[in-house]
Amino acid sequence: MSERTVFFLSDQTGVTAETLGHSVLTQFDGRQFRQVTLPFIDSDDKAMAAVDQINSAASNDGVRPIVFSTLVQDEFRNVVRKAEGLFLDIFDVFLGPLEEELEQQSTHEAGRAHGMSNIESYMKRIEATNFALANDDGGITRNYEVADVILLGVSRSGKTPTCLYLALQYGVYAANFPLTDEEFDSGTLPDILLKQKHKLVGLTIAPTRLQQIRKERRALGQYSSAQQVRYELREAEKMFKKYGVPQIDTTEFSIEEISSRILDSTGAERRVRA
Amino acid sequence: MSERTVFFLSDQTGVTAETLGHSVLTQFDGRQFRQVTLPFIDSDDKAMAAVDQINSAASNDGVRPIVFSTLVQDEFRNVVRKAEGLFLDIFDVFLGPLEEELEQQSTHEAGRAHGMSNIESYMKRIEATNFALANDDGGITRNYEVADVILLGVSRSGKTPTCLYLALQYGVYAANFPLTDEEFDSGTLPDILLKQKHKLVGLTIAPTRLQQIRKERRALGQYSSAQQVRYELREAEKMFKKYGVPQIDTTEFSIEEISSRILDSTGAERRVRA
Repeated sequence: MSERTVFFLSDQTGVTAETLGHSVLTQFDGRQFRQVTLPFIDSDDKAMAAVDQINSAASNDGVRPIVFSTLVQDEFRNVVRKAEGLFLDIFDVFLGPLEEELEQQSTHEAGRAHGMSNIESYMKRIEATNFALANDDGGITRNYEVADVILLGVSRSGKTPTCLYLALQYGVYAANFPLTDEEFDSGTLPDILLKQKHKLVGLTIAPTRLQQIRKERRALGQYSSAQQVRYELREAEKMFKKYGVPQIDTTEFSIEEISSRILDSTGAERRVRA
Repeated sequence: MSERTVFFLSDQTGVTAETLGHSVLTQFDGRQFRQVTLPFIDSDDKAMAAVDQINSAASNDGVRPIVFSTLVQDEFRNVVRKAEGLFLDIFDVFLGPLEEELEQQSTHEAGRAHGMSNIESYMKRIEATNFALANDDGGITRNYEVADVILLGVSRSGKTPTCLYLALQYGVYAANFPLTDEEFDSGTLPDILLKQKHKLVGLTIAPTRLQQIRKERRALGQYSSAQQVRYELREAEKMFKKYGVPQIDTTEFSIEEISSRILDSTGAERRVRA
C-alpha cells in the first residue's frame, strides 16, 4: 500500500483542518499518512505554492494526496482546488446549510477562528494558564477558592499536563495537589482541600503504566520501583474512597479525554472553547 | 434576534466538534451562541438524553439549535439526528469520499481521534510539556540543545502559554528566555542562546497592550508603567535586529496563531498533531 500524503490547508493556523482531518483519518485502520500543514495561505503566490507541493506529493507518492482545507476566501480556495488531490473543505460543506438556517450571509473573511477576534477569551486562557502554573503540584498560591477543579494524584499520574490543557483549551482554572507520604501516613487530606470537596477529582493509573512513565524520569531507585508504585496507587485509591472523590483512570486516556471527563464529572463550565 | 443554542455532540471528547463548530460559526458576524458540549454519547440513554436537551433548547429559544456532531456510531447518530436541530455531522460528510478514495471501509468505532490509540504520541506531548516547564523563563535546565525553538521576549509577552501550547498540541520542545536588564545593559544575548541562533524567535507586543496585561498582574509600580514597558520593548527590538532574530508581533494574535507562525518561521516540525 503506497503511503499517502495528507495536507492541512488554511488561511489561518491550520488547527481546525488538523483536528478535523485527524479525527476523520483515525477511522481508517492500519494506514500511515505523511502529514503536512500549510498555514497562512493568504495570497495567490502561497496558494500556487500549495498547489505545487500537493502536485509533487501526488507524483512522488504515485497516488493523490488528501487535502483538508479550511480556506474561507473563494479566490484562494479556487486555486488550490485545482491541485491533484482529494479536496475536502469544511466551509464548502457547512456554510451553505448554516447561511440558510441563520438567514445570514457568512463573511468569507479569513482569520476569525483562532484569531484575536476575542481579546477577552485570549485573556481568560492566559489567566487560567497562569493559575495552573501557580497552583501546580500543591504550589505556591493554593488559591483553591477560585479553582474550578482540583486534581489529586500521585507523582506522574498526569495532573500537570491535564491542568495546563484545561487552561489553554477551555480557560478552566485547574489546580493540582500531589498525594505523597504526608497524606498517606496521616490518612487524611488537608483541610484546605476538604473545604473544596466538590471540586476534587482523583487521577488513577495502572501500576505498570505509571512505572513506565516514572522510569522515563528516573530509571533507578525506589521512585520507579514496582513496589513503591503499587503502594502509592493503593493508598491514593483508599483516600479517594474515604472522601468520595470521583476517580478517573488515565491509563487508556489521552489528555483530551481526561480533561473532558473531568469537566463532565465536576460539572465545571468551559469558560471558552479554543 | 433570538439567541441560538449550539450543541457539540461526540461519542468521545467533543474537541473536534467544538473546534469545527467554532471555526464555522465565526464566519457569522454579530451572533451570540449559547454553547453546550455533550461528550461521551456512547449509549442509547445518553443519545436520548441529548435529544431531550436539544429539544428543550429549541422550545426555550423559540428557534432550533445548531448541532455539530462527530458521532461515528450509526445507532446513536440515528437517534440524535431526530432531535429538533440543524444536524451537521463531519463523518456524514467526509467518510464517504474518503472510503471511496482509500478503497477501504471506515471502522465506525468511537474513541479513536483523541483516544489513547497512540501511546507514543501521548508520551511525546507529556515529555514536551515537561520540557517546556523545566525550560520556562530561562529556567533550571537550559537544555537548549534539544529544544526545537527558543522564544525570547520581555515579561508577559506571551512566551510561557505559547511554549505550553506548542508542547501540548504539537509535541514541540519549546524553551523560553526572558529579556531583562541583564541583557539590555550588556547589549548582548548569552552564548548559550547564540549557539542555537537558528532556533530563536522574538516575541514583540504593542506597548499599550503589554501595559494592560502587566497591570492585571501588578497594577502599580514601574513594572507596568508606560515608560518601563516602552523601554523594554525598544531594547528587545534592538536585540532582535542586532542578531537577526525573526520577530512575531503577538498583539493581534491568538496562542494558536503565534504558535503556528513560530513553526512556520523556524521550520520546526510538528512531532504530533493532537
